[in-house]
Amino acid sequence: MLLPFDTLVHLDRSAGTPVYQQLANRLIALILEGALKPGMPLPASREMATLLNLHRKTVIAAYDELQQQDWIYTVERKGIFIAENLPEIKPRSFKAAARTGAYAENASFPYYEAMHIALPLYVKQTPKYTIDDGFPDPRLAPMDELLKASRELMRIPENRYGLISGASEGAWALREALTTHLNNSRGLNIHSQNILITRGGQMGIHLAASLLLKPGDKVIVAAPNYHLADLCFQQLGAHLVRVPVDAEGIDVDRIASILEKQDIRLLYIIPHHHQPTTVTLSAERRMKLLTLIRQYKLPVIEDDYDYEFHYSGGPLLPLASAPHQGQVIYIGSINKSLALPFRSGYMVAPPDFIAQCTYLRRMIDLRGDTLMEASLAKLFENGTIQRHLKKSSKLYEHRRDVLCDTLSKQLGSAVQFTSPQGGMAVWAQFDPSIPLVTLARRAGEMGLRMSDGSSYKYGVKDQNALRIGYAALNDEEIRAVVGILRKSVEGK
Amino acid sequence: MLLPFDTLVHLDRSAGTPVYQQLANRLIALILEGALKPGMPLPASREMATLLNLHRKTVIAAYDELQQQDWIYTVERKGIFIAENLPEIKPRSFKAAARTGAYAENASFPYYEAMHIALPLYVKQTPKYTIDDGFPDPRLAPMDELLKASRELMRIPENRYGLISGASEGAWALREALTTHLNNSRGLNIHSQNILITRGGQMGIHLAASLLLKPGDKVIVAAPNYHLADLCFQQLGAHLVRVPVDAEGIDVDRIASILEKQDIRLLYIIPHHHQPTTVTLSAERRMKLLTLIRQYKLPVIEDDYDYEFHYSGGPLLPLASAPHQGQVIYIGSINKSLALPFRSGYMVAPPDFIAQCTYLRRMIDLRGDTLMEASLAKLFENGTIQRHLKKSSKLYEHRRDVLCDTLSKQLGSAVQFTSPQGGMAVWAQFDPSIPLVTLARRAGEMGLRMSDGSSYKYGVKDQNALRIGYAALNDEEIRAVVGILRKSVEGK
Repeated sequence: MLLPFDTLVHLDRSAGTPVYQQLANRLIALILEGALKPGMPLPASREMATLLNLHRKTVIAAYDELQQQDWIYTVERKGIFIAENLPEIKPRSFKAAARTGAYAENASFPYYEAMHIALPLYVKQTPKYTIDDGFPDPRLAPMDELLKASRELMRIPENRYGLISGASEGAWALREALTTHLNNSRGLNIHSQNILITRGGQMGIHLAASLLLKPGDKVIVAAPNYHLADLCFQQLGAHLVRVPVDAEGIDVDRIASILEKQDIRLLYIIPHHHQPTTVTLSAERRMKLLTLIRQYKLPVIEDDYDYEFHYSGGPLLPLASAPHQGQVIYIGSINKSLALPFRSGYMVAPPDFIAQCTYLRRMIDLRGDTLMEASLAKLFENGTIQRHLKKSSKLYEHRRDVLCDTLSKQLGSAVQFTSPQGGMAVWAQFDPSIPLVTLARRAGEMGLRMSDGSSYKYGVKDQNALRIGYAALNDEEIRAVVGILRKSVEGK
Repeated sequence: MLLPFDTLVHLDRSAGTPVYQQLANRLIALILEGALKPGMPLPASREMATLLNLHRKTVIAAYDELQQQDWIYTVERKGIFIAENLPEIKPRSFKAAARTGAYAENASFPYYEAMHIALPLYVKQTPKYTIDDGFPDPRLAPMDELLKASRELMRIPENRYGLISGASEGAWALREALTTHLNNSRGLNIHSQNILITRGGQMGIHLAASLLLKPGDKVIVAAPNYHLADLCFQQLGAHLVRVPVDAEGIDVDRIASILEKQDIRLLYIIPHHHQPTTVTLSAERRMKLLTLIRQYKLPVIEDDYDYEFHYSGGPLLPLASAPHQGQVIYIGSINKSLALPFRSGYMVAPPDFIAQCTYLRRMIDLRGDTLMEASLAKLFENGTIQRHLKKSSKLYEHRRDVLCDTLSKQLGSAVQFTSPQGGMAVWAQFDPSIPLVTLARRAGEMGLRMSDGSSYKYGVKDQNALRIGYAALNDEEIRAVVGILRKSVEGK
């Protein structure tokens, strides 16, 4: 019985793969699917060529290929046969339905329970405006300078190998440049071996938490907290102990009383512009917290993702700059500062912790993109980044004022917020009579993509609030966005 | 008592941070270190300016800063004082030694035992030649085309937000383009929801293994194996069950007998050009293995990192193209194919597994660099990648021949190898009388960086072998490298 090869074999003449190779591949698939059984004859090349409307040479090339790979053999004057030494396979249905392959259905893998959290759908169509979470403006990104630095680095033949391989702890030049930058701008007192270059802040949180936490360990986090940090700790099996945040930051007295009674493995804190509420930890609470850190030898992850943007006076120094006996793991983001479309961040910690995190990072992701890291180092060295930070900080401060002003005037009592001292977003609490889910749906119809608040109520009471990022919106866009918000509030 | 401020305060006038800010930061540090205690007076601005050789306005700006942040307060006609509400801190030594900060020593974090494996030192100086592990040639990378595609994407305002944020599962366009490419070139039968874009192959291995393995689980790996896969499984707490590799690939009969007796959670396999030995799994063993996979519902990670480069006939189809009931998680590398200085790879698996891995990837690294992913999609769409693969494959085949030829002629019986059917490296076993450690040291003195074989003997008997990557070396470089190898063998 001859198989219906014309139905079973689909070839795409416009594809990058040669047609003879496609034919060989398809015949192997038929052998593996059991449609072509060991010992079965194949049509002669001329016959197959007619069946499939191909040139005979194409079929011969495919058969040669199959013979080389031991899938078929030729017997002089008898014909071509499927190899005999292959184990018998039960044939499957011959129906030529598309996409019936091994991946059509789900396999029966067991999964972690904690993993079952819905992911947001990826939407293809682009809305007119977006309210982000506090993103920098990519229009300001020093892309030309970065690409120029990249090209210069690539032009040097000796760099060739290093730029596509490189060190898991990050490009040496970037670690050096960051050391200088962090010592100058944040009063840190570190060497380059205190620095690990990560992809972004999230990788730093993950690496540090992976090293410090065992399933069942307790982690103090703010309530509310940056939800991806919460999820990261929970994914590692940790239990969250939530401590409220007020206008002075996280409640440090509460932390003190928890430390007295419970065994806490880690404190995760965003003291500068807390995510999501934007409040800054007061000097008094900072001092108290530092005493607790030393007293309990408490490991701390200090997430300082938008240190560079502070408008009311200078930024507050991080906990990491104070005496903490090496207990504070300091995490920062470069891409959040520079608006570059490449994720880049860093971790500051004692050298042995950096070495351990480097090892773990290698297991996860080998290393960063060395060319990009080395190019960033150049931009630190020639002052591009420092100039960019100065310029964008000024602009973001202006945009903060425009947003706060417009929100007050347009939305009045429907929204409550405090103008943030820094950062790239306003924490806006909407009147409970206007649920964010409704607001987001109405806004979506008018071309504005915005959060429905779900990521800000993870594990805490719903405050009907969201972060309104202003840094990436110019004045006109801010007014347009607030205009849509107003119409959505009014239900029009 | 006045503190020796001139010794305690070091200011860098050439730094990016303004001097007044540096002074404020340093004074805060002194408060935190306990050198400046609550209630203590500070020198008047004029006095401090003289002490530090600064303009008085600079000191006033620093004091303003400190006052705004509540670190100090002013009493009319009395002077400036350190805030009272700060907790008392024991003063530390006043010695102005450099780098005495909190990160100077190691903290007392507990670490995983398995982590204590030495990392290779990062060497700053660049040697003249490098023998890599099988890397593509960055001189061939379609960098200009990639950058052109990037610029075009960035020029479209609607792309702005999407290109610095984006989806954790990878840019939609790249998932689509890869689906077409993999279906055409490898006989896969998948949709884009079967694909997760990862950073490189290593991230795919880590994500899949993290989902599948619990501490104590058993994993079958080849002996020898790609050592970073071994380390990744061990870091997750798994036990390795090693199965030998011969000229036909991994010993599948041995796998069968292990499966009969032991509870195996995962098989990790590189069937195409095995790392490190370069052998290809025979058709017969493939069939047997597929039967076992289905029979035991055995989860498999198929690492197919250099599928694109096969010279003796077409490449063998992956296990993933055969009927495996969704059990085969297929991992590939884009950067290994294209020689681009950006890590990029993918995982093919059933949709629910992809969703779980996407979740985990988000915890680790949020997402990839969307701009880069979308640019790669353009390069698939306009045929650049397909042309690049054709061109580079031809060149690498030639370089393989040059290397094998030169090795035979120059080194004779000092080295044993089989010319590989594909890939980017030769598996070269040196005579036991010339230990690789000695060879690498001698070669290093002549400007050639090469492995001392340590990464190839992880967990297995030392074969005194290494991979000699040829793809990134031109004819002249191959001859120079082999020349140095010869001198190193001869001990000159």
